[in-house]
Amino acid sequence: MTAGVRTVCVIGTGLIGGSLALALKKAGFCQRIVGAGRTEATLKKAVELGVVDGYETDFALAAKDADIVVVAVPLSAMKNVFEQIAPALSSTAIVTDAGSAKQSVIKDAELAFGKNFNRFVAGHPISGTEKSGVTAAFTELYENRKVILTPTESVDVEAVRLVADMWRAAGADVETMDAAHHDMVLAGTSHLPHVLAFGLVDCLNSLEDVDEIFRFAAGGFRDFTRIASSDPVMWRDICLSNRDDILVMMKKYEDELKTICSALESKDGDALIDIFSRAKKARDQFNNQ
Amino acid sequence: MTAGVRTVCVIGTGLIGGSLALALKKAGFCQRIVGAGRTEATLKKAVELGVVDGYETDFALAAKDADIVVVAVPLSAMKNVFEQIAPALSSTAIVTDAGSAKQSVIKDAELAFGKNFNRFVAGHPISGTEKSGVTAAFTELYENRKVILTPTESVDVEAVRLVADMWRAAGADVETMDAAHHDMVLAGTSHLPHVLAFGLVDCLNSLEDVDEIFRFAAGGFRDFTRIASSDPVMWRDICLSNRDDILVMMKKYEDELKTICSALESKDGDALIDIFSRAKKARDQFNNQ
Repeated sequence: MTAGVRTVCVIGTGLIGGSLALALKKAGFCQRIVGAGRTEATLKKAVELGVVDGYETDFALAAKDADIVVVAVPLSAMKNVFEQIAPALSSTAIVTDAGSAKQSVIKDAELAFGKNFNRFVAGHPISGTEKSGVTAAFTELYENRKVILTPTESVDVEAVRLVADMWRAAGADVETMDAAHHDMVLAGTSHLPHVLAFGLVDCLNSLEDVDEIFRFAAGGFRDFTRIASSDPVMWRDICLSNRDDILVMMKKYEDELKTICSALESKDGDALIDIFSRAKKARDQFNNQ
Repeated sequence: MTAGVRTVCVIGTGLIGGSLALALKKAGFCQRIVGAGRTEATLKKAVELGVVDGYETDFALAAKDADIVVVAVPLSAMKNVFEQIAPALSSTAIVTDAGSAKQSVIKDAELAFGKNFNRFVAGHPISGTEKSGVTAAFTELYENRKVILTPTESVDVEAVRLVADMWRAAGADVETMDAAHHDMVLAGTSHLPHVLAFGLVDCLNSLEDVDEIFRFAAGGFRDFTRIASSDPVMWRDICLSNRDDILVMMKKYEDELKTICSALESKDGDALIDIFSRAKKARDQFNNQ
């Protein structure tokens, strides 16, 4: 299936790109993995850690011999990277990305590669940790995790198949869906929770008794706020890239909080039980998946 | 230190009361532990599991020979339990509780035992899981966890010391603070996060695409919403008992969300970075505690 894949170029060798490179190496998916990025020290570290076989700081040079180029950079850097590699790509090279919002990346790709380019396969691995950087990368990050591909209708079927094969080689389950649908679903399950967790920690951090408050926090708080340790730049980018869907979800959530506040204000225990029971039932079902 | 403690009575042998009983047994803190509760089947199970040595379904009978009575029932049941045991207590018996809000329990105790009763030591173990019931109880629940005692000024010093000794025997670090301060701190670190998690799951659960949404949820969502599997009745009681402090925190949080929404609406990436960075810094510090 993957016969013919000699070189994969990974632009951005952080947690996401680095872990993919490690997994592809382990699977023997290709002959060579070239890393690229802005910071030479990071790329040297990536070679040293065995994450990539070699590196280039010039994105065009890195991409020119690649069969597949994986762009795993923050969303705000996508367009610039696409523009740099566009002139260097071979006539059969496939480009994919790992961004957490998909409509914005597809727009960036169209601007950089042109509307007629049919080898850009937008993708998003539903995996990660609150850590970042090449030292956080590990081979098993994608094992049994979902990867969502959101190619537009005009994308070459073989290109989609090859990108799907690549993620499967890294251990992932691959699904395909419409980019707009992806962005709405992820706004709910990932983007909103991150925003809420950042917001909670910032809110508590502004209180006078902040030291006391964190000192008496227990396991529930620890788990609830773990994602507030995520990379602020990455999350700013996600918020701006998927702004409309996130705002829709935030408005829904504000309405939910208003309902809970009203129940509290009117001491309506039955209303609270209803909300908490529905939530517990849904969460318990999710647990049993 | 604990010479003289023969019998501990634990009313409510669920996760909290049951785990305390197991830990006290292991530590040899007392000669005998008597369980009490509404449901005989649960008490039989508690004996069968070695959680308690015997049981009574009549709370007064259970408490009458006890040196310490630990009331580990939902907050809404506290007053009724206190009223039932009040006439049966020996002249030296100490009463304590394990409720998550303290001002309301102190009020309940004053109403049941009288203003002059100086052997009620309000307490709250900062520990637990999203599970409940005697089968969820385990000996190590309190190991290296904090227990906050909030005795009023008139409470007998020796009574406070004995309750502190009991929790230390169960492995906990014991701290003392004012009940009002406790309720404010816990509203922020525990009560608000639980309400927010219940709210998020209920909010997502109301969406059309609910199945899709839960299907593509990853580790961040899993951790963030774990506490939404908690017991709805327990959390209704906590919300009603610590209503004022929780409402104060919810208003602060709503303001925080408004700030984030405004930043999103005006595409103010710098404002988002500020909020997310402050949160990450605070959360990372908490991690390193």
